[in-house]
Order: sequence, then structure tokens, then C-alpha cells
Amino acid sequence: MSEAAYRIDSLQYCNWSEKIFTQMREGGLDAVHVTIAYHENFRETVARMEQWNALFERFPHLIFQGFTGDDVRLARDTERTAIFYGFQNPSPIEDDIRLVEILHTLGARFMQLSYNNQSLLATGCYEAEDPGITRMGREVIAEMNRVGLVVDMSHSAERSTLEAMEISARPIVITHANPAFWHPALRNKSDAVLKGLAETGGVLGFSLYPHHLKDGTDCTLESFCEMVARAAEIMGAERLGIGSDLCQDQPDSVVEWMRSGRWTKNVDYGEGSKDNAGFPPQPEWFRDNRDFGNLEHGLRAAGFSETDVAGIVGNNWLRFFDENFGPDY
Amino acid sequence: MSEAAYRIDSLQYCNWSEKIFTQMREGGLDAVHVTIAYHENFRETVARMEQWNALFERFPHLIFQGFTGDDVRLARDTERTAIFYGFQNPSPIEDDIRLVEILHTLGARFMQLSYNNQSLLATGCYEAEDPGITRMGREVIAEMNRVGLVVDMSHSAERSTLEAMEISARPIVITHANPAFWHPALRNKSDAVLKGLAETGGVLGFSLYPHHLKDGTDCTLESFCEMVARAAEIMGAERLGIGSDLCQDQPDSVVEWMRSGRWTKNVDYGEGSKDNAGFPPQPEWFRDNRDFGNLEHGLRAAGFSETDVAGIVGNNWLRFFDENFGPDY
Repeated sequence: MSEAAYRIDSLQYCNWSEKIFTQMREGGLDAVHVTIAYHENFRETVARMEQWNALFERFPHLIFQGFTGDDVRLARDTERTAIFYGFQNPSPIEDDIRLVEILHTLGARFMQLSYNNQSLLATGCYEAEDPGITRMGREVIAEMNRVGLVVDMSHSAERSTLEAMEISARPIVITHANPAFWHPALRNKSDAVLKGLAETGGVLGFSLYPHHLKDGTDCTLESFCEMVARAAEIMGAERLGIGSDLCQDQPDSVVEWMRSGRWTKNVDYGEGSKDNAGFPPQPEWFRDNRDFGNLEHGLRAAGFSETDVAGIVGNNWLRFFDENFGPDY
Repeated sequence: MSEAAYRIDSLQYCNWSEKIFTQMREGGLDAVHVTIAYHENFRETVARMEQWNALFERFPHLIFQGFTGDDVRLARDTERTAIFYGFQNPSPIEDDIRLVEILHTLGARFMQLSYNNQSLLATGCYEAEDPGITRMGREVIAEMNRVGLVVDMSHSAERSTLEAMEISARPIVITHANPAFWHPALRNKSDAVLKGLAETGGVLGFSLYPHHLKDGTDCTLESFCEMVARAAEIMGAERLGIGSDLCQDQPDSVVEWMRSGRWTKNVDYGEGSKDNAGFPPQPEWFRDNRDFGNLEHGLRAAGFSETDVAGIVGNNWLRFFDENFGPDY
């Protein structure tokens, strides 16, 4: 390999603990993009940052907050994991475009424009109608471009996603989803989205969340890696990464908050169902952070070169971090 | 001079405009510590930061946000003025110690523990009783020390101020006040406070606000600079700076907000009086930012060396910024 293989997971929302941070180190994770807000408003999001600051103070030998690509290198050099913040909904900015810069200064690096439902900015993947990016959405995309807060369309609907690619002056991403050609879930992405994403210089993070996998918990590593190989044919291997969507040790009350937030008094089952309402079990070959090595083995077996494997498990995300986390001069 | 003379004003609260930023450049100001909160709570303080971000976007050729001492050097090199944030009251942290780190990340560099009245942390200079630093005050001082948010006791009472010096592991400051030996106002400081401040490595910023001056608006430059010379005998010239308390172009409604906040429904006249309730006129030799040169001339005439003059108008603050705006490793 011409470049060291960094390992980066571009989405996790675990019930954070010393155990999990230790497993990150065992798995060689140099950086993890962690969700800190689903439906939280600004002040609630700051409270999440306060909780993370408490963890950084408590476990400085395992984790620290990441702001730039160089923090991934610092993590590797100091045998720790850099934690990057992201939001799955624009709720942290409320109705105030100037909170984009404030939250970027506090370390936010990814923000989804919508989460399943219509937001002030864009449409979510479970809405019946998708009118595309809103007036405020256009303004917020420009502001995110300006400061270096990356547009993430993982939970957004198709038209909104394609329009975001058009409107955004900088590459956008899908931090955690899989191609619909492999598993046609509403959360997975069409060939048009995959192609558009690659053309704009974005990155797709493959999800290991069972509802996004063909055969769910029973999905095989071989099937997953063959899907990655097909996606590489469409997008190019340099546009691919991992965004496991790992929700380790979370109680089912958390998936209820993700799905229902404060937008309904009823229960929304999201990608689940009444009979399968909680977090589904992980496939045995990707239980948690310790199994990144399995992904590398599987990708090699699917025919990827060492450079491509290194790119998919982290180097592609690192290149993206380097180019997109700062102001657009 | 062995070192370039930087010009730093360690306190202003003007009605900010292009005119004033241009005058900062005319006056050669490399850095200004600006108050962004008197009684504002957390969310209101963030709104002030949003307003400053709008100014930084609008006047990038004149100003930018400063975070470190090196930003003062960057300002000099690029012929702009670095703007550093501070609070005159701990109201922005509300009752939440973890907001100290959040606000430091957003750029807060000075925080007064109290403003005239009793706060959750310390006693203000207009209270009848001063019970000293509170339980929460001790905790917040330690947290401020940890992250590099400087304790400012400009508007605090004597016992609280002396205790803050004892409790704080890092130097504290008085950004804007004068010695009581020269003008015995409640806001000015006793010899004990001046000596203590010098011993802990702190800095006193001399105020040009008429209520802090002997003879008020009619104070002479000679009298002011003789006072500085006497303070230097007590503290050492390297512990002295300027904190003009310039409130240029503010309507009197602003001084009412400073004094009465939301703590009284009545009018508090603070340092003024019923017959002199508004902002007093500046002395003619210090109208605004353009008159820093007058201070230098006056200090030379009072017998200060070039090194001392350079220290007092900015280099002493720069040294303090270098040492105290980052984490305490």
C-alpha cells in the first residue's frame, strides 16, 4: 500500500461506554462519525455535546473530539479514536440559518437535511410526496458549503437528494445506506442517486444495519461484499466507505425516539414493524467495532485491490474529511 | 524596541459599525476584547455571536474573530483587528458548568464572575455584603482554568476578588478599572487587589470610562498617566494594559440594560446618578480608537521607557493571551 489504511466509520449511534471505546481501539478505528442529534433542538444538542465533553474528559486515552482530517492522523499517531459530530435531522439549527456556523464551530461536520419526514429544508424518505429542496433548504445548503458542514442525504427522499446534489457547490454524502438494487428498502438508494453522488465527488457509506441488508441479520459477508463490488462498478471504488449505523447496547426506547421523536403521539415503526419493533440483531460477521477486519477480508475475497480495500475502510473518508470540513475559500 | 508594539484594548462595548471598525484600523488596534453579554442567557449569548458572525462576513477586510494570541499577530500581518469575546456576568453559563467549555469553544476568552450584584459565583461591587466565592464559583473557576477561559473580576467586590486570586490556579485579570487611590469609586480597585493581581501574574486594564476617571470627563491625560506610573510602582509595568470600556455610539437604553438587566423593575443608576443617568462624554484626549497614540505620548511624557509603553498599550495583554487562552496542560 502506498498509503496507510485508516479505518473510519461514518456513522454510529451507540450507547457510549468505556467498553465500546475500548472495542473501537481493538478494531483499529481511527475515527467515528457519531450522531449527536435526531430530533434534538439547539439547546438539547448542546447538552449532547456537554455529555460528549464529559466522555472526552473521562476517557482521554481512548477518544478525543475531531475537527479536521488531521485529527484522524493524530488519532492514529496516539492510538486513540477521533469522534466527529453529526446530526440526522436539521432540528439543531431550528429555524435559524446562523446556527449552522455556530454548530460548525462547536464541531458539527455532517447534517442530514431531513430524517424520514419533511423538514424545513428537504423531504424524508417516508413521505408520500417529495417537493424537493425548500427555499430555506437552498439557503442552508449554501451556508453549509461556506463553513464546511457536509450535507448528508441518508434519510432523504429521491428528488430532494438529487436536487441537493445540483444545488450544493461542494460534494454531498450519504453516510449510511445501501444500494436499492441489492435490497430495495425505502432507505436504500437508486442507481440514479449512486451515480449522481459519485459525479459530485461525494461518498457513500455502506450500512451494516440489518434493515438495510439483504436477508437482514442473516445477510452473508459474501453477499455484502459482492454488493460493494457492484456499487464500485457504478460509482468507482474511491467513492465508497463504511457507515455502519451501529447502535450497540441501545435500549429499544432509543429506536422509538429516532422514529417518533415529537412528531407523532403514536408509534412509528420506521424500517421495522409491529412484530419487529426493536433494534434487530447484527449479522455475526459485524457485531461491533472489532469486526472491521472481517470487512477487509471480505472485500479482498470479492476481488478488491489493497488500495481499494484501504480506501473503502477509511482512506476515502479521510480524503473527504480533508477537503470538506473547513471553509470554502 | 526589541519587540513590535501591539495595540490591544481589553474592553469595549460599542454600537458596532463600519465606522468604528475603520477607526480601529486608524488607531492601529490589533485586537479588541469585546463584551458580548451583560445579562444575556446562553441562547441570547449565542444570538450575539450570530450577530458578530454577520459582521465578520460583512467586513472581512477590517475584522475577524480571535481565538489565540497568534490571531493578534495575524491581525497585525493582515492589517485587521482581531475581535475576542468576553462576558461581564456569568449569565451565559446559566446554572450549567459544562457551558464553560461549550462557550470557550465558541471563542469566549474572558468571563466576569459577577456584575455589580451577587451572582451564582461571586459578589458584585455594589452589594452591601460580600460573602466571597460560592460553592459553584469554586467549581467554575477550576473549569475556567482547565479550558482557558480567563476569570475577570472588574465588577466584583473586594473579598470575592481576593478569594478568586487564591482559588484560581491561573492568573486572573481586571480588564477595565482604575486604582481607587487615584479615584475612589466602588468600581475602582484597592492597593490590596492591585498587589494581589500582580503577584498572581494577572493584568489590570486601565479604564477610560469617565466614571472611573479622576475629574470624570475633565480628567487630564497627565493625571491619567501619572496614575499609571504610580500603579506601575505597586504592580510592575509588565502587569498593566488598557481596557478602555469604550461604549461608542451607544444609546442610553444600553447603559440602562447594563445596569438594570432583568434584576429590577426600577431604574438603577450604577456609577451614574439621576441627574447624570446616560453615558458620560469621553475626555477629549481619548474620544475613541483613534486616540491610542495619545496614550503612548502621555505615557512617554510620564517617564515610561519605550518597552514599558509598548507593554502597556498591548504587548502585556498579548503575552497574557498567549499563556492563558488555551487548555491548562
